[in-house]
Amino acid sequence: MHKIITIGRHFSSGGREVGKKLADVLGYAYYDKELLNLVASETGLAVDYIEKYSESDITRSYAYMYGRSFASYKQTPVEKLQIAQNNAIKELAQKGPCIFVGRCADYVLHEENPLKVFVYSSNMKSRIQRCFDKVPEDKAKGEAKIKKQILEIDKQRARYYEFITCQKWANYENYNLCIDTSFFNVDKAVEIIKNAVENT
Amino acid sequence: MHKIITIGRHFSSGGREVGKKLADVLGYAYYDKELLNLVASETGLAVDYIEKYSESDITRSYAYMYGRSFASYKQTPVEKLQIAQNNAIKELAQKGPCIFVGRCADYVLHEENPLKVFVYSSNMKSRIQRCFDKVPEDKAKGEAKIKKQILEIDKQRARYYEFITCQKWANYENYNLCIDTSFFNVDKAVEIIKNAVENT
Repeated sequence: MHKIITIGRHFSSGGREVGKKLADVLGYAYYDKELLNLVASETGLAVDYIEKYSESDITRSYAYMYGRSFASYKQTPVEKLQIAQNNAIKELAQKGPCIFVGRCADYVLHEENPLKVFVYSSNMKSRIQRCFDKVPEDKAKGEAKIKKQILEIDKQRARYYEFITCQKWANYENYNLCIDTSFFNVDKAVEIIKNAVENT
Repeated sequence: MHKIITIGRHFSSGGREVGKKLADVLGYAYYDKELLNLVASETGLAVDYIEKYSESDITRSYAYMYGRSFASYKQTPVEKLQIAQNNAIKELAQKGPCIFVGRCADYVLHEENPLKVFVYSSNMKSRIQRCFDKVPEDKAKGEAKIKKQILEIDKQRARYYEFITCQKWANYENYNLCIDTSFFNVDKAVEIIKNAVENT
């Protein structure tokens, strides 16, 4: 079987950038927008909608579902999206060496034994700075507000991951390699993972 | 400043072996027995005693201390040991590039900004197998008993680490690189850390 890498990540840790650069240096496929397009064509949902709900806090949608009787059970768009997304991940993973960022791909593809990477930042200041570098006008909001936003997005990801997988998000034991981008920079993190994936 | 690597580890994950091999390939000093000897000469305690109590559950000793009045306060041998050990770690770290395994060296040396590695195994079966490989007669005890022993030693390490550092043991955010030796083998883990430490 060809190699598959899944990357989970803290919000604003540079995890997505790590994934993209790693795909470039390894010559692997990187699934992000392509994944969304595939899900869109399968479900008929808009790409914007998928982007919004594919990693968001979906527990509310399910809570609503459980409140209804099974007799009247009908999949909600968010449920349809989850199923289509999982199918798309499995389908794309068959095509050749590839990298998935987020979307519980580590869990969805566990039978393929992917290299499961978690990218995090042990330094909140560097996460805040990364936000400011991306959206300079956010500096006006102040560090405290951005920190709150960062932690809220991490919480959403944790709820989503735990709901889908019944596993704790960001638990190192669910990954094979965890890298701190506030100690290493993005390029060094890419080099470390590249080295890790070679000759294994 | 020269480079310092600290390695925390799951019991029976191969962390100590990773540290020793890494020191060989990098040409770094590896402090284990030397550290014990230095502490022994400073405290007058026997090396065997130090080995037993330098990472054990020391909270009982401290609980006893807190039960006494401050007027009659006198350091216990275990307390003396902890202070001497921390001093020895700091002293040895000044000498040149080096690797410390365990003993809260990541915390003791945090001002030196060491590369903090955590070596773990996400697969209990491989940890049990490692125990059997080291002590073949333990096979007679059975897997369940060995698993219990492994988890108990991890718990002791966690209590020791948390008591000394006021931080959670094995929390990935306290480390810069976490490596799963049930996915990678020991030699590959050494190669990954070697690559991580070079050009940083």
